[in-house]
Amino acid sequence: MRHLIEPEDFTLDEIEELVDTGIEIYNNPKKYSKVCDGKILASLFFEPSTRTKFSFDSAMMRLGGNVIGFADADTSSTKKGESLADTIKVMGYYADIIVMRHPKEGAPKLASQYSAIPIINGGDGGHQHPTQTLTDLITIKKYKGTISGHSVAFCGDLKYGRTVHSLIRTLARFGTKKFVLVSPEELKLPESLKRQLVEKFGVELQEVPYLEEVIDEVDILYMTRIQKERFFNEADYLKLKNSFKLTREKLKNAKEDMIIMHPLPRVNEIAYDVDDDQRAIYFEQSEMGVYVRMALITKLLEVGPYARG
Amino acid sequence: MRHLIEPEDFTLDEIEELVDTGIEIYNNPKKYSKVCDGKILASLFFEPSTRTKFSFDSAMMRLGGNVIGFADADTSSTKKGESLADTIKVMGYYADIIVMRHPKEGAPKLASQYSAIPIINGGDGGHQHPTQTLTDLITIKKYKGTISGHSVAFCGDLKYGRTVHSLIRTLARFGTKKFVLVSPEELKLPESLKRQLVEKFGVELQEVPYLEEVIDEVDILYMTRIQKERFFNEADYLKLKNSFKLTREKLKNAKEDMIIMHPLPRVNEIAYDVDDDQRAIYFEQSEMGVYVRMALITKLLEVGPYARG
Amino acid sequence: MRHLIEPEDFTLDEIEELVDTGIEIYNNPKKYSKVCDGKILASLFFEPSTRTKFSFDSAMMRLGGNVIGFADADTSSTKKGESLADTIKVMGYYADIIVMRHPKEGAPKLASQYSAIPIINGGDGGHQHPTQTLTDLITIKKYKGTISGHSVAFCGDLKYGRTVHSLIRTLARFGTKKFVLVSPEELKLPESLKRQLVEKFGVELQEVPYLEEVIDEVDILYMTRIQKERFFNEADYLKLKNSFKLTREKLKNAKEDMIIMHPLPRVNEIAYDVDDDQRAIYFEQSEMGVYVRMALITKLLEVGPYARG
Repeated sequence: MRHLIEPEDFTLDEIEELVDTGIEIYNNPKKYSKVCDGKILASLFFEPSTRTKFSFDSAMMRLGGNVIGFADADTSSTKKGESLADTIKVMGYYADIIVMRHPKEGAPKLASQYSAIPIINGGDGGHQHPTQTLTDLITIKKYKGTISGHSVAFCGDLKYGRTVHSLIRTLARFGTKKFVLVSPEELKLPESLKRQLVEKFGVELQEVPYLEEVIDEVDILYMTRIQKERFFNEADYLKLKNSFKLTREKLKNAKEDMIIMHPLPRVNEIAYDVDDDQRAIYFEQSEMGVYVRMALITKLLEVGPYARG
Repeated sequence: MRHLIEPEDFTLDEIEELVDTGIEIYNNPKKYSKVCDGKILASLFFEPSTRTKFSFDSAMMRLGGNVIGFADADTSSTKKGESLADTIKVMGYYADIIVMRHPKEGAPKLASQYSAIPIINGGDGGHQHPTQTLTDLITIKKYKGTISGHSVAFCGDLKYGRTVHSLIRTLARFGTKKFVLVSPEELKLPESLKRQLVEKFGVELQEVPYLEEVIDEVDILYMTRIQKERFFNEADYLKLKNSFKLTREKLKNAKEDMIIMHPLPRVNEIAYDVDDDQRAIYFEQSEMGVYVRMALITKLLEVGPYARG
Repeated sequence: MRHLIEPEDFTLDEIEELVDTGIEIYNNPKKYSKVCDGKILASLFFEPSTRTKFSFDSAMMRLGGNVIGFADADTSSTKKGESLADTIKVMGYYADIIVMRHPKEGAPKLASQYSAIPIINGGDGGHQHPTQTLTDLITIKKYKGTISGHSVAFCGDLKYGRTVHSLIRTLARFGTKKFVLVSPEELKLPESLKRQLVEKFGVELQEVPYLEEVIDEVDILYMTRIQKERFFNEADYLKLKNSFKLTREKLKNAKEDMIIMHPLPRVNEIAYDVDDDQRAIYFEQSEMGVYVRMALITKLLEVGPYARG
């Protein structure tokens, strides 16, 4: 039995196969619409995340399966003092696969040690969110043809965003050799991660303070939200936020086939009129997230494309 | 692609066809039990309404479809500052049709401008609640044979009830020429609506302070809840509430084939012993609401009876 | 039409048949995976109980049915002042069967008097929780071969636990002649229940203060949670809780084929290392709870094994 707690749980071959399966399901959804008939997904959101929950619920239903679960902290057994291990053991009799989001780092890992059924980490604190990384990878493969070999720029909050950390590490595993990092001084990529990227993967990191300087060389522009609460004072935030906001103006010098990604939700870091630009694919990215989750569920349940001979 | 934001979005022919389709599904439910197989309804209640939500959820399931959604304000993306337009765009990838209830007037209309899938307004503030109107119409057609041609009385709070405003306007569109209005002075039908009814539809409005005066001439008696908080002081409320309460006593002079309707929930405006009177059909009205919603879903998804040649 | 409000609603033959049907479904789940196709369970938890709700939701889905409902107090119609009777009448049009949990004793009984569809009591205050009793009985039959004829010990809080009261009464109905009661002075079985057991069923009750004294004679050890809030002061609680905690040490003299049961959630009344003992079957007990609920749903809906000739 397999779990997905962090992207490193899967080999590069397995990840690429998942991405390809997701694209295959996207192209032939009818063929897979009953492969989870009779199966139940337990969707356990100890912390709310409507978007992630809906993406999983939709994925399971589009495979013909059912969903039980809660959208916010378990209001019952946990309050009575039950351990997570006990909750997960019992859940193994109610469902066939679990996705859990938890505010505590490491909770899904712990759960996987006691679980009789596969566990998917749907996000644990600021730590891991592996299906967001799979969503990013399937989007890159679908829109750029391959996972690696592109010039990738990350823009915004590169310090706190687990999404960025996970994707950049995974792209480095896949052989991407150069990343452009665009962020305010306060929100730079952590030193430890930079060291790991350079020493372990031989990656080149180019740090620039303005997107305009580099946008003409970029194949994939990955935008992230800058949260006001990351700054010591509002003046700094107001001064900086426009420097890291993507506008039509800034896109003038970008390549015709560049793609603009964003994990969503977007607040104001991408101007609304950018949505109409054909390079903006952040909504399609959400769409591909459903298909890669469908692929993941079939893999962990060993059904459909992953059914055992 | 079509949406249902307000009753005026559909022609009279379309509304009557929906009502007839609902009655046909009511008579032959098995025939339609799989027409939404593989389809997903996103049931987005930014404001709670258990009854409306359950009616839609049940309707979708009885058509063989699935439901994702939330029963109370989206606790996640909205808090992070995401626009409704973005939420709706993403939802278009998770589901095939949306029903949304929202505390803000106009929110479903706005949503429909950004949505890739059909949107049903499940109630927006005090503004519109078109599927309640459809529920009322299917009930009238089923129990009285035709939508128009009846003497209709509305009793209770005629000032604030969007249900009454919407139904009275729609019945006027269908050619009903006279309405009897029974309400306290404080809760009369708004002047602007009265003017519209008289000038645009040539309707005659008879306003009376007591139900007893008119009950012997009425074919359809539509009761509504009088909310205590509408009154300036409790004394006025207590004085008035019994005048607008339906009792067995008041029913003595009513026609044998009159029907008593109520959008529910009922508090104390209909005495419980009226339930046993064969003219009381307010529970059956809830039942018909499921069937007209089934018809509406099939229409907007263009499946089953509305499948394209 | 039948309801299940308390175990006494079913004859001993009916209960044993339910238990046997549950075991049959456990052995041949595929055979029953579509018997509730097109049916809807309304899962109405006016008080949260994640475990019970999930068990019912899973049971209905594993029979091919659908679920609507809420996991916490109805936030809508009830607030508007609607009576439970009205809520239940309307629900009869949205669903085919109801499970309800309610903080008020007697609420499910009241609901059953107004309901057009079968009602299952999922727990009403400290009063009844009949599907927990069915869960206990199916576990005993599966692991010990018969429902009665065993030496049963109950350990922990025997005063407040409705689970214990209901099971002990039902086992007495089935002919069990002796029970061992292990509890602190403050948490003894209520006198009225003791009298009923002795006078009505001719049962022998052996009360002991320590588990060690009797464990070598016991076939079934039923553990329960001792809640801190039951004690007047913390010192008493701390002094006592270890006396009623099951450890590997205490198990040394127990029979090889004794079974250890617990309704869960467990807090600290069973040491975690007891889980690895083959006599510990409290997690399997949760599993059997799904199957006996499947049997119950098919019985009340008269489908599958209970379909009418």
